[in-house]
Amino acid sequence: MKEYIYKLTIKVRDYECDLQGVVNNSNYQHYMEHTRHEFLESLGENFGVMHEKGVDAFVSRVDIQYKTSLRSGDSFVSCLNLSKEGPKLVFYQDIYRASDMVLAAKGKVETVVVEDGKLTRGEYFDELIKGLKK
Amino acid sequence: MKEYIYKLTIKVRDYECDLQGVVNNSNYQHYMEHTRHEFLESLGENFGVMHEKGVDAFVSRVDIQYKTSLRSGDSFVSCLNLSKEGPKLVFYQDIYRASDMVLAAKGKVETVVVEDGKLTRGEYFDELIKGLKK
Amino acid sequence: MKEYIYKLTIKVRDYECDLQGVVNNSNYQHYMEHTRHEFLESLGENFGVMHEKGVDAFVSRVDIQYKTSLRSGDSFVSCLNLSKEGPKLVFYQDIYRASDMVLAAKGKVETVVVEDGKLTRGEYFDELIKGLKK
Amino acid sequence: MKEYIYKLTIKVRDYECDLQGVVNNSNYQHYMEHTRHEFLESLGENFGVMHEKGVDAFVSRVDIQYKTSLRSGDSFVSCLNLSKEGPKLVFYQDIYRASDMVLAAKGKVETVVVEDGKLTRGEYFDELIKGLKK
Repeated sequence: MKEYIYKLTIKVRDYECDLQGVVNNSNYQHYMEHTRHEFLESLGENFGVMHEKGVDAFVSRVDIQYKTSLRSGDSFVSCLNLSKEGPKLVFYQDIYRASDMVLAAKGKVETVVVEDGKLTRGEYFDELIKGLKK
Repeated sequence: MKEYIYKLTIKVRDYECDLQGVVNNSNYQHYMEHTRHEFLESLGENFGVMHEKGVDAFVSRVDIQYKTSLRSGDSFVSCLNLSKEGPKLVFYQDIYRASDMVLAAKGKVETVVVEDGKLTRGEYFDELIKGLKK
Repeated sequence: MKEYIYKLTIKVRDYECDLQGVVNNSNYQHYMEHTRHEFLESLGENFGVMHEKGVDAFVSRVDIQYKTSLRSGDSFVSCLNLSKEGPKLVFYQDIYRASDMVLAAKGKVETVVVEDGKLTRGEYFDELIKGLKK
Repeated sequence: MKEYIYKLTIKVRDYECDLQGVVNNSNYQHYMEHTRHEFLESLGENFGVMHEKGVDAFVSRVDIQYKTSLRSGDSFVSCLNLSKEGPKLVFYQDIYRASDMVLAAKGKVETVVVEDGKLTRGEYFDELIKGLKK
Protein backbone atom coordinates (compact mmCIF):
# COMPACT_ATOMS: atom_id res chain seq x y z
CA MET A 1 0.00 0.00 0.00
CA LYS A 2 1.06 3.57 -0.73
CA GLU A 3 2.39 5.66 2.12
CA TYR A 4 0.37 8.54 3.50
CA ILE A 5 1.14 11.23 6.04
CA TYR A 6 -2.31 10.99 7.60
CA LYS A 7 -5.04 8.34 7.82
CA LEU A 8 -8.47 8.33 9.41
CA THR A 9 -10.87 5.40 9.67
CA ILE A 10 -14.55 6.36 9.31
CA LYS A 11 -17.77 4.37 9.22
CA VAL A 12 -20.46 5.05 6.62
CA ARG A 13 -23.60 6.56 8.15
CA ASP A 14 -26.80 5.28 6.61
CA TYR A 15 -28.21 8.75 5.93
CA GLU A 16 -25.20 9.28 3.65
CA CYS A 17 -26.54 6.58 1.31
CA ASP A 18 -29.02 7.64 -1.36
CA LEU A 19 -31.86 5.86 -3.13
CA GLN A 20 -29.34 3.80 -5.13
CA GLY A 21 -28.30 2.22 -1.83
CA VAL A 22 -24.76 3.60 -2.02
CA VAL A 23 -23.00 6.57 -0.46
CA ASN A 24 -24.02 9.69 -2.40
CA ASN A 25 -21.11 11.18 -4.36
CA SER A 26 -21.06 14.50 -2.58
CA ASN A 27 -20.43 12.74 0.72
CA TYR A 28 -16.96 11.69 -0.40
CA GLN A 29 -16.22 15.39 -0.53
CA HIS A 30 -17.47 15.61 3.06
CA TYR A 31 -15.26 12.69 4.05
CA MET A 32 -12.25 14.33 2.43
CA GLU A 33 -12.98 17.69 4.07
CA HIS A 34 -13.35 16.05 7.48
CA THR A 35 -10.06 14.22 6.94
CA ARG A 36 -8.24 17.45 6.06
CA HIS A 37 -9.66 19.17 9.13
CA GLU A 38 -8.71 16.29 11.41
CA PHE A 39 -5.25 16.37 9.87
CA LEU A 40 -5.18 20.10 10.68
CA GLU A 41 -6.07 19.31 14.30
CA SER A 42 -3.25 16.76 14.40
CA LEU A 43 -0.97 19.73 13.63
CA GLY A 44 -2.49 21.72 16.50
CA GLU A 45 -4.81 23.92 14.43
CA ASN A 46 -8.64 24.02 14.24
CA PHE A 47 -10.64 25.16 11.22
CA GLY A 48 -13.26 27.03 13.27
CA VAL A 49 -10.61 28.81 15.30
CA MET A 50 -8.75 29.75 12.09
CA HIS A 51 -11.95 31.32 10.78
CA GLU A 52 -12.35 33.36 13.97
CA LYS A 53 -8.76 34.59 13.54
CA GLY A 54 -9.65 35.85 10.04
CA VAL A 55 -7.76 33.06 8.28
CA ASP A 56 -9.85 30.95 5.91
CA ALA A 57 -8.70 28.06 3.79
CA PHE A 58 -10.88 27.70 0.71
CA VAL A 59 -11.09 24.85 -1.73
CA SER A 60 -10.40 26.19 -5.22
CA ARG A 61 -10.73 22.89 -7.09
CA VAL A 62 -11.68 19.27 -6.49
CA ASP A 63 -11.13 16.40 -8.86
CA ILE A 64 -12.57 13.12 -7.58
CA GLN A 65 -12.61 9.76 -9.35
CA TYR A 66 -15.17 7.29 -8.06
CA LYS A 67 -13.95 3.71 -8.25
CA THR A 68 -16.05 1.49 -5.96
CA SER A 69 -19.24 2.49 -4.16
CA LEU A 70 -19.30 2.39 -0.39
CA ARG A 71 -22.45 1.01 1.23
CA SER A 72 -24.31 0.77 4.52
CA GLY A 73 -22.15 -1.03 7.07
CA ASP A 74 -18.84 -0.25 5.35
CA SER A 75 -15.92 1.37 7.11
CA PHE A 76 -13.23 3.08 5.10
CA VAL A 77 -9.74 4.45 5.51
CA SER A 78 -9.40 8.04 4.36
CA CYS A 79 -5.76 8.76 3.48
CA LEU A 80 -3.98 12.01 2.74
CA ASN A 81 -0.79 13.32 1.23
CA LEU A 82 -0.05 16.92 0.37
CA SER A 83 2.18 19.11 -1.69
CA LYS A 84 2.71 22.85 -1.77
CA GLU A 85 2.31 24.05 -5.36
CA GLY A 86 2.78 27.82 -5.65
CA PRO A 87 0.30 29.51 -3.31
CA LYS A 88 -1.81 26.34 -3.19
CA LEU A 89 -1.76 23.50 -0.77
CA VAL A 90 -2.78 20.46 -2.78
CA PHE A 91 -4.16 17.38 -1.03
CA TYR A 92 -4.04 13.94 -2.59
CA GLN A 93 -6.76 11.98 -0.88
CA ASP A 94 -7.52 8.30 -1.36
CA ILE A 95 -10.39 6.46 0.27
CA TYR A 96 -10.17 2.67 0.69
CA ARG A 97 -12.92 0.31 1.82
CA ALA A 98 -11.60 -1.05 5.10
CA SER A 99 -12.72 -4.66 4.69
CA ASP A 100 -10.51 -5.35 1.65
CA MET A 101 -8.63 -2.06 1.01
CA VAL A 102 -10.20 -1.71 -2.42
CA LEU A 103 -9.92 1.88 -3.67
CA ALA A 104 -13.30 3.59 -3.37
CA ALA A 105 -12.39 7.12 -4.42
CA LYS A 106 -9.34 9.13 -5.37
CA GLY A 107 -9.27 12.89 -5.01
CA LYS A 108 -7.07 15.88 -5.69
CA VAL A 109 -8.14 18.91 -3.71
CA GLU A 110 -6.56 22.32 -4.21
CA THR A 111 -6.84 24.88 -1.44
CA VAL A 112 -5.81 28.50 -0.95
CA VAL A 113 -5.64 30.69 2.12
CA VAL A 114 -7.46 33.99 2.41
CA GLU A 115 -6.48 36.29 5.28
CA ASP A 116 -8.72 39.23 6.15
CA GLY A 117 -10.35 38.90 2.75
CA LYS A 118 -7.09 38.78 0.73
CA LEU A 119 -5.66 35.82 -1.15
CA THR A 120 -2.24 34.92 0.30
CA ARG A 121 0.85 33.17 -0.99
CA GLY A 122 0.05 30.36 1.42
CA GLU A 123 2.52 31.37 4.14
CA TYR A 124 0.03 30.06 6.69
CA PHE A 125 0.32 26.60 5.15
CA ASP A 126 4.12 26.81 4.98
CA GLU A 127 4.23 27.43 8.71
CA LEU A 128 1.78 24.62 9.49
CA ILE A 129 3.51 21.93 7.50
CA LYS A 130 7.13 22.85 8.01
CA GLY A 131 7.58 20.15 10.63
CA LEU A 132 6.36 17.43 8.28
CA LYS A 133 8.95 15.29 6.57
CA LYS A 134 8.11 14.39 2.95
CA MET B 1 -57.54 23.23 3.70
CA LYS B 2 -56.27 25.04 6.76
CA GLU B 3 -55.15 28.63 6.38
CA TYR B 4 -51.48 29.53 6.65
CA ILE B 5 -49.67 32.83 6.71
CA TYR B 6 -46.87 31.55 4.49
CA LYS B 7 -46.48 28.77 1.92
CA LEU B 8 -43.56 27.61 -0.18
CA THR B 9 -43.57 24.93 -2.86
CA ILE B 10 -40.40 22.84 -3.00
CA LYS B 11 -39.32 19.84 -5.06
CA VAL B 12 -37.64 16.83 -3.48
CA ARG B 13 -33.99 16.51 -4.49
CA ASP B 14 -32.87 12.95 -5.05
CA TYR B 15 -29.85 13.19 -2.74
CA GLU B 16 -32.34 13.89 0.06
CA CYS B 17 -33.68 10.35 -0.31
CA ASP B 18 -31.95 7.60 1.62
CA LEU B 19 -31.48 3.89 1.03
CA GLN B 20 -35.14 3.26 1.85
CA GLY B 21 -35.99 5.28 -1.26
CA VAL B 22 -37.78 8.01 0.71
CA VAL B 23 -36.75 11.45 1.93
CA ASN B 24 -34.59 11.02 5.03
CA ASN B 25 -36.32 12.28 8.19
CA SER B 26 -33.80 14.93 9.02
CA ASN B 27 -34.42 16.63 5.68
CA TYR B 28 -37.92 17.63 6.79
CA GLN B 29 -36.15 19.73 9.38
CA HIS B 30 -34.16 21.27 6.56
CA TYR B 31 -37.34 21.96 4.61
CA MET B 32 -38.95 23.57 7.65
CA GLU B 33 -35.86 25.67 8.37
CA HIS B 34 -35.68 26.85 4.77
CA THR B 35 -39.39 27.74 4.89
CA ARG B 36 -38.93 29.79 8.06
CA HIS B 37 -35.96 31.61 6.54
CA GLU B 38 -37.86 32.36 3.33
CA PHE B 39 -40.75 33.60 5.45
CA LEU B 40 -38.23 35.83 7.23
CA GLU B 41 -37.10 37.21 3.86
CA SER B 42 -40.72 37.89 2.95
CA LEU B 43 -40.72 40.18 6.01
CA GLY B 44 -37.59 41.95 4.79
CA GLU B 45 -35.09 40.17 7.03
CA ASN B 46 -32.27 37.72 6.18
CA PHE B 47 -30.92 35.06 8.54
CA GLY B 48 -27.29 35.56 7.54
CA VAL B 49 -27.55 39.33 7.91
CA MET B 50 -29.19 38.90 11.34
CA HIS B 51 -26.22 36.78 12.41
CA GLU B 52 -23.79 39.46 11.28
CA LYS B 53 -25.75 42.01 13.34
CA GLY B 54 -25.28 39.83 16.43
CA VAL B 55 -28.89 38.61 16.46
CA ASP B 56 -29.31 34.85 16.28
CA ALA B 57 -32.55 32.91 16.27
CA PHE B 58 -32.01 29.44 17.70
CA VAL B 59 -34.31 26.44 17.63
CA SER B 60 -34.94 25.30 21.18
CA ARG B 61 -37.27 22.41 20.38
CA VAL B 62 -38.68 20.56 17.38
CA ASP B 63 -41.53 18.08 17.44
CA ILE B 64 -42.19 16.48 14.06
CA GLN B 65 -44.76 13.83 13.22
CA TYR B 66 -44.10 11.90 10.04
CA LYS B 67 -47.29 10.92 8.23
CA THR B 68 -46.51 10.04 4.60
CA SER B 69 -43.08 9.62 3.07
CA LEU B 70 -42.06 11.93 0.26
CA ARG B 71 -40.18 10.34 -2.65
CA SER B 72 -38.08 11.14 -5.70
CA GLY B 73 -40.10 13.27 -8.11
CA ASP B 74 -42.49 14.64 -5.45
CA SER B 75 -43.13 18.31 -4.94
CA PHE B 76 -44.56 19.50 -1.66
CA VAL B 77 -46.12 22.60 -0.14
CA SER B 78 -44.45 23.72 3.05
CA CYS B 79 -46.89 25.77 5.14
CA LEU B 80 -46.34 27.88 8.19
CA ASN B 81 -48.26 29.54 11.00
CA LEU B 82 -46.76 31.11 14.10
CA SER B 83 -47.58 32.20 17.58
CA LYS B 84 -45.64 34.19 20.14
CA GLU B 85 -45.58 32.22 23.40
CA GLY B 86 -43.64 34.05 26.12
CA PRO B 87 -40.14 34.74 24.80
CA LYS B 88 -40.55 32.05 22.15
CA LEU B 89 -41.70 32.31 18.60
CA VAL B 90 -43.40 29.02 17.86
CA PHE B 91 -43.86 27.85 14.29
CA TYR B 92 -46.54 25.37 13.27
CA GLN B 93 -45.31 23.86 10.05
CA ASP B 94 -47.20 21.40 7.87
CA ILE B 95 -45.83 19.78 4.75
CA TYR B 96 -48.24 18.47 2.12
CA ARG B 97 -47.43 16.38 -0.94
CA ALA B 98 -48.33 18.67 -3.82
CA SER B 99 -49.90 16.07 -6.10
CA ASP B 100 -52.77 15.22 -3.73
CA MET B 101 -52.27 17.48 -0.69
CA VAL B 102 -51.83 14.49 1.60
CA LEU B 103 -50.12 15.51 4.84
CA ALA B 104 -46.50 14.35 4.79
CA ALA B 105 -45.23 15.87 8.05
CA LYS B 106 -46.45 18.10 10.82
CA GLY B 107 -44.02 20.08 12.95
CA LYS B 108 -43.95 22.40 15.91
CA VAL B 109 -40.72 24.35 16.10
CA GLU B 110 -39.89 26.59 19.05
CA THR B 111 -37.31 29.33 18.58
CA VAL B 112 -35.68 31.92 20.78
CA VAL B 113 -33.59 34.97 20.00
CA VAL B 114 -30.11 35.50 21.38
CA GLU B 115 -28.60 38.98 21.03
CA ASP B 116 -24.91 39.47 21.64
CA GLY B 117 -24.85 36.15 23.45
CA LYS B 118 -27.84 36.85 25.72
CA LEU B 119 -31.26 35.21 25.61
CA THR B 120 -33.90 37.88 24.91
CA ARG B 121 -37.62 38.20 25.60
CA GLY B 122 -38.13 37.95 21.85
CA GLU B 123 -38.55 41.68 21.19
CA TYR B 124 -36.87 41.14 17.83
CA PHE B 125 -39.67 38.76 16.86
CA ASP B 126 -42.36 41.14 18.13
CA GLU B 127 -41.04 43.85 15.87
CA LEU B 128 -40.80 41.52 12.85
CA ILE B 129 -44.28 40.11 13.07
CA LYS B 130 -46.20 43.14 14.28
CA GLY B 131 -47.52 43.86 10.82
CA LEU B 132 -48.97 40.36 10.45
CA LYS B 133 -52.67 39.88 11.02
CA LYS B 134 -53.43 36.39 12.27
CA MET C 1 -24.80 10.29 35.16
CA LYS C 2 -27.89 8.44 33.96
CA GLU C 3 -27.49 4.87 32.78
CA TYR C 4 -27.87 4.03 29.12
CA ILE C 5 -27.93 0.75 27.25
CA TYR C 6 -25.82 2.11 24.40
CA LYS C 7 -23.31 4.94 23.97
CA LEU C 8 -21.32 6.18 21.00
CA THR C 9 -18.68 8.91 20.97
CA ILE C 10 -18.69 11.05 17.82
CA LYS C 11 -16.71 14.10 16.72
CA VAL C 12 -18.40 17.10 15.14
CA ARG C 13 -17.51 17.49 11.47
CA ASP C 14 -17.04 21.09 10.39
CA TYR C 15 -19.45 20.85 7.45
CA GLU C 16 -22.15 20.06 10.01
CA CYS C 17 -21.80 23.59 11.40
CA ASP C 18 -23.83 26.34 9.77
CA LEU C 19 -23.31 30.06 9.34
CA GLN C 20 -24.03 30.61 13.03
CA GLY C 21 -20.86 28.62 13.75
CA VAL C 22 -22.73 25.84 15.55
CA VAL C 23 -23.92 22.39 14.52
CA ASN C 24 -27.10 22.82 12.46
CA ASN C 25 -30.18 21.46 14.26
CA SER C 26 -31.02 18.83 11.73
CA ASN C 27 -27.64 17.19 12.24
CA TYR C 28 -28.61 16.13 15.75
CA GLN C 29 -31.25 14.04 14.06
CA HIS C 30 -28.50 12.55 11.92
CA TYR C 31 -26.42 11.85 15.02
CA MET C 32 -29.37 10.16 16.70
CA GLU C 33 -30.16 8.09 13.61
CA HIS C 34 -26.55 6.99 13.29
CA THR C 35 -26.53 6.02 16.98
CA ARG C 36 -29.69 3.92 16.59
CA HIS C 37 -28.23 2.18 13.55
CA GLU C 38 -24.95 1.46 15.32
CA PHE C 39 -26.95 0.14 18.26
CA LEU C 40 -28.77 -2.08 15.76
CA GLU C 41 -25.42 -3.38 14.50
CA SER C 42 -24.37 -4.10 18.08
CA LEU C 43 -27.40 -6.46 18.14
CA GLY C 44 -26.23 -8.15 14.94
CA GLU C 45 -28.59 -6.37 12.53
CA ASN C 46 -27.89 -3.85 9.74
CA PHE C 47 -30.34 -1.23 8.52
CA GLY C 48 -29.45 -1.64 4.84
CA VAL C 49 -29.75 -5.42 5.04
CA MET C 50 -33.12 -5.07 6.81
CA HIS C 51 -34.35 -2.92 3.91
CA GLU C 52 -33.24 -5.56 1.40
CA LYS C 53 -35.20 -8.16 3.40
CA GLY C 54 -38.34 -6.00 3.06
CA VAL C 55 -38.27 -4.87 6.68
CA ASP C 56 -38.13 -1.11 7.17
CA ALA C 57 -38.07 0.78 10.44
CA PHE C 58 -39.57 4.24 10.01
CA VAL C 59 -39.45 7.18 12.35
CA SER C 60 -43.03 8.26 13.11
CA ARG C 61 -42.18 11.12 15.45
CA VAL C 62 -39.18 13.01 16.80
CA ASP C 63 -39.18 15.44 19.69
CA ILE C 64 -35.79 17.07 20.26
CA GLN C 65 -34.91 19.71 22.82
CA TYR C 66 -31.77 21.70 22.10
CA LYS C 67 -29.89 22.68 25.24
CA THR C 68 -26.31 23.62 24.38
CA SER C 69 -24.89 24.11 20.90
CA LEU C 70 -22.06 21.88 19.75
CA ARG C 71 -19.24 23.55 17.81
CA SER C 72 -16.26 22.82 15.60
CA GLY C 73 -13.76 20.71 17.50
CA ASP C 74 -16.31 19.26 19.95
CA SER C 75 -16.73 15.57 20.55
CA PHE C 76 -19.95 14.29 22.07
CA VAL C 77 -21.36 11.15 23.63
CA SER C 78 -24.60 10.00 22.04
CA CYS C 79 -26.57 7.87 24.53
CA LEU C 80 -29.62 5.71 24.06
CA ASN C 81 -32.33 3.98 26.03
CA LEU C 82 -35.44 2.39 24.62
CA SER C 83 -38.89 1.24 25.53
CA LYS C 84 -41.48 -0.79 23.65
CA GLU C 85 -44.77 1.13 23.72
CA GLY C 86 -47.52 -0.71 21.83
CA PRO C 87 -46.32 -1.30 18.28
CA LYS C 88 -43.70 1.40 18.64
CA LEU C 89 -40.10 1.19 19.68
CA VAL C 90 -39.36 4.46 21.42
CA PHE C 91 -35.78 5.69 21.77
CA TYR C 92 -34.73 8.14 24.45
CA GLN C 93 -31.57 9.74 23.14
CA ASP C 94 -29.38 12.18 24.99
CA ILE C 95 -26.31 13.88 23.55
CA TYR C 96 -23.63 15.21 25.89
CA ARG C 97 -20.65 17.37 25.01
CA ALA C 98 -17.69 15.12 25.79
CA SER C 99 -15.40 17.74 27.33
CA ASP C 100 -17.69 18.50 30.28
CA MET C 101 -20.70 16.19 29.84
CA VAL C 102 -23.06 19.15 29.52
CA LEU C 103 -26.35 18.09 27.90
CA ALA C 104 -26.43 19.30 24.30
CA ALA C 105 -29.69 17.74 23.11
CA LYS C 106 -32.39 15.44 24.38
CA GLY C 107 -34.57 13.47 22.01
CA LYS C 108 -37.50 11.10 21.99
CA VAL C 109 -37.76 9.19 18.74
CA GLU C 110 -40.70 6.92 17.96
CA THR C 111 -40.27 4.23 15.34
CA VAL C 112 -42.48 1.63 13.73
CA VAL C 113 -41.71 -1.37 11.57
CA VAL C 114 -43.21 -1.87 8.12
CA GLU C 115 -42.84 -5.31 6.56
CA ASP C 116 -43.58 -5.73 2.86
CA GLY C 117 -45.44 -2.44 2.92
CA LYS C 118 -47.60 -3.23 5.97
CA LEU C 119 -47.40 -1.66 9.41
CA THR C 120 -46.58 -4.36 11.99
CA ARG C 121 -47.13 -4.74 15.72
CA GLY C 122 -43.37 -4.44 16.11
CA GLU C 123 -42.63 -8.16 16.45
CA TYR C 124 -39.33 -7.54 14.66
CA PHE C 125 -38.30 -5.20 17.46
CA ASP C 126 -39.46 -7.64 20.16
CA GLU C 127 -37.17 -10.29 18.72
CA LEU C 128 -34.21 -7.91 18.42
CA ILE C 129 -34.32 -6.57 21.94
CA LYS C 130 -35.42 -9.65 23.83
CA GLY C 131 -31.88 -10.31 25.01
CA LEU C 132 -31.54 -6.83 26.51
CA LYS C 133 -32.01 -6.46 30.22
CA LYS C 134 -33.81 -3.29 31.31
CA MET D 1 -23.43 34.52 -22.06
CA LYS D 2 -22.65 30.97 -23.20
CA GLU D 3 -25.53 28.86 -24.48
CA TYR D 4 -26.77 25.91 -22.47
CA ILE D 5 -29.30 23.21 -23.20
CA TYR D 6 -30.76 23.36 -19.70
CA LYS D 7 -30.91 25.96 -16.91
CA LEU D 8 -32.40 25.88 -13.44
CA THR D 9 -32.61 28.76 -10.98
CA ILE D 10 -32.12 27.75 -7.33
CA LYS D 11 -31.96 29.70 -4.09
CA VAL D 12 -29.24 29.00 -1.50
CA ARG D 13 -30.66 27.40 1.66
CA ASP D 14 -29.03 28.66 4.84
CA TYR D 15 -28.22 25.17 6.16
CA GLU D 16 -26.05 24.75 3.07
CA CYS D 17 -23.71 27.45 4.38
CA ASP D 18 -20.96 26.40 6.75
CA LEU D 19 -19.11 28.15 9.55
CA GLN D 20 -17.23 30.29 7.02
CA GLY D 21 -20.60 31.82 6.11
CA VAL D 22 -20.49 30.53 2.53
CA VAL D 23 -22.06 27.55 0.78
CA ASN D 24 -20.05 24.45 1.69
CA ASN D 25 -18.15 23.05 -1.31
CA SER D 26 -19.87 19.72 -1.37
CA ASN D 27 -23.23 21.40 -1.85
CA TYR D 28 -22.24 22.52 -5.34
CA GLN D 29 -22.10 18.83 -6.15
CA HIS D 30 -25.64 18.55 -4.77
CA TYR D 31 -26.74 21.50 -6.91
CA MET D 32 -25.18 19.93 -9.99
CA GLU D 33 -26.75 16.54 -9.27
CA HIS D 34 -30.16 18.10 -8.75
CA THR D 35 -29.77 20.01 -12.03
CA ARG D 36 -28.91 16.82 -13.93
CA HIS D 37 -31.89 15.01 -12.43
CA GLU D 38 -34.26 17.88 -13.26
CA PHE D 39 -32.82 17.87 -16.77
CA LEU D 40 -33.57 14.13 -16.87
CA GLU D 41 -37.17 14.85 -15.85
CA SER D 42 -37.41 17.44 -18.61
CA LEU D 43 -36.68 14.52 -20.97
CA GLY D 44 -39.44 12.44 -19.40
CA GLU D 45 -37.26 10.25 -17.18
CA ASN D 46 -36.95 10.09 -13.38
CA PHE D 47 -33.84 8.98 -11.51
CA GLY D 48 -35.76 7.02 -8.84
CA VAL D 49 -37.86 5.25 -11.45
CA MET D 50 -34.69 4.39 -13.44
CA HIS D 51 -33.25 2.79 -10.31
CA GLU D 52 -36.39 0.70 -9.84
CA LYS D 53 -36.06 -0.48 -13.47
CA GLY D 54 -32.51 -1.68 -12.73
CA VAL D 55 -30.85 1.17 -14.62
CA ASP D 56 -28.46 3.29 -12.56
CA ALA D 57 -26.44 6.25 -13.73
CA PHE D 58 -23.29 6.62 -11.65
CA VAL D 59 -20.88 9.50 -11.47
CA SER D 60 -17.41 8.25 -12.30
CA ARG D 61 -15.58 11.56 -11.97
CA VAL D 62 -16.22 15.16 -10.95
CA ASP D 63 -13.91 18.08 -11.51
CA ILE D 64 -15.19 21.31 -9.98
CA GLN D 65 -13.48 24.69 -9.95
CA TYR D 66 -14.72 27.10 -7.31
CA LYS D 67 -14.64 30.72 -8.47
CA THR D 68 -16.89 32.85 -6.26
CA SER D 69 -18.56 31.76 -3.02
CA LEU D 70 -22.34 31.78 -2.85
CA ARG D 71 -23.86 33.10 0.40
CA SER D 72 -27.10 33.25 2.34
CA GLY D 73 -29.74 35.05 0.33
CA ASP D 74 -28.12 34.35 -3.07
CA SER D 75 -29.96 32.76 -5.95
CA PHE D 76 -28.01 31.13 -8.73
CA VAL D 77 -28.53 29.78 -12.22
CA SER D 78 -27.32 26.23 -12.67
CA CYS D 79 -26.55 25.59 -16.35
CA LEU D 80 -25.81 22.40 -18.21
CA ASN D 81 -24.38 21.17 -21.46
CA LEU D 82 -23.49 17.57 -22.30
CA SER D 83 -21.46 15.46 -24.63
CA LYS D 84 -21.35 11.73 -25.23
CA GLU D 85 -17.72 10.59 -24.96
CA GLY D 86 -17.39 6.85 -25.51
CA PRO D 87 -19.60 5.08 -22.97
CA LYS D 88 -19.71 8.20 -20.82
CA LEU D 89 -22.19 11.01 -20.73
CA VAL D 90 -20.19 14.06 -19.73
CA PHE D 91 -21.94 17.08 -18.24
CA TYR D 92 -20.44 20.55 -18.36
CA GLN D 93 -22.10 22.43 -15.55
CA ASP D 94 -21.66 26.10 -14.74
CA ILE D 95 -23.22 27.87 -11.80
CA TYR D 96 -23.71 31.65 -11.94
CA ARG D 97 -24.78 33.95 -9.12
CA ALA D 98 -28.14 35.27 -10.28
CA SER D 99 -27.74 38.87 -9.12
CA ASP D 100 -24.81 39.65 -11.42
CA MET D 101 -24.17 36.42 -13.36
CA VAL D 102 -20.68 36.09 -11.93
CA LEU D 103 -19.38 32.52 -12.32
CA ALA D 104 -19.53 30.75 -8.97
CA ALA D 105 -18.46 27.24 -9.96
CA LYS D 106 -17.57 25.31 -13.08
CA GLY D 107 -17.87 21.54 -13.18
CA LYS D 108 -17.21 18.61 -15.46
CA VAL D 109 -19.11 15.52 -14.38
CA GLU D 110 -18.61 12.16 -16.04
CA THR D 111 -21.33 9.55 -15.71
CA VAL D 112 -21.79 5.94 -16.79
CA VAL D 113 -24.82 3.69 -16.89
CA VAL D 114 -24.98 0.37 -15.11
CA GLU D 115 -27.83 -1.98 -16.03
CA ASP D 116 -28.57 -4.95 -13.81
CA GLY D 117 -25.14 -4.57 -12.30
CA LYS D 118 -23.23 -4.38 -15.61
CA LEU D 119 -21.45 -1.37 -17.07
CA THR D 120 -23.04 -0.46 -20.41
CA ARG D 121 -21.88 1.39 -23.53
CA GLY D 122 -24.30 4.12 -22.58
CA GLU D 123 -27.10 3.11 -24.97
CA TYR D 124 -29.59 4.34 -22.39
CA PHE D 125 -28.11 7.82 -22.66
CA ASP D 126 -28.07 7.70 -26.48
CA GLU D 127 -31.79 7.00 -26.48
CA LEU D 128 -32.54 9.77 -23.95
CA ILE D 129 -30.65 12.52 -25.70
CA LYS D 130 -31.25 11.63 -29.31
CA GLY D 131 -33.95 14.29 -29.62
CA LEU D 132 -31.60 17.04 -28.44
CA LYS D 133 -30.05 19.27 -31.06
CA LYS D 134 -26.50 20.39 -30.31
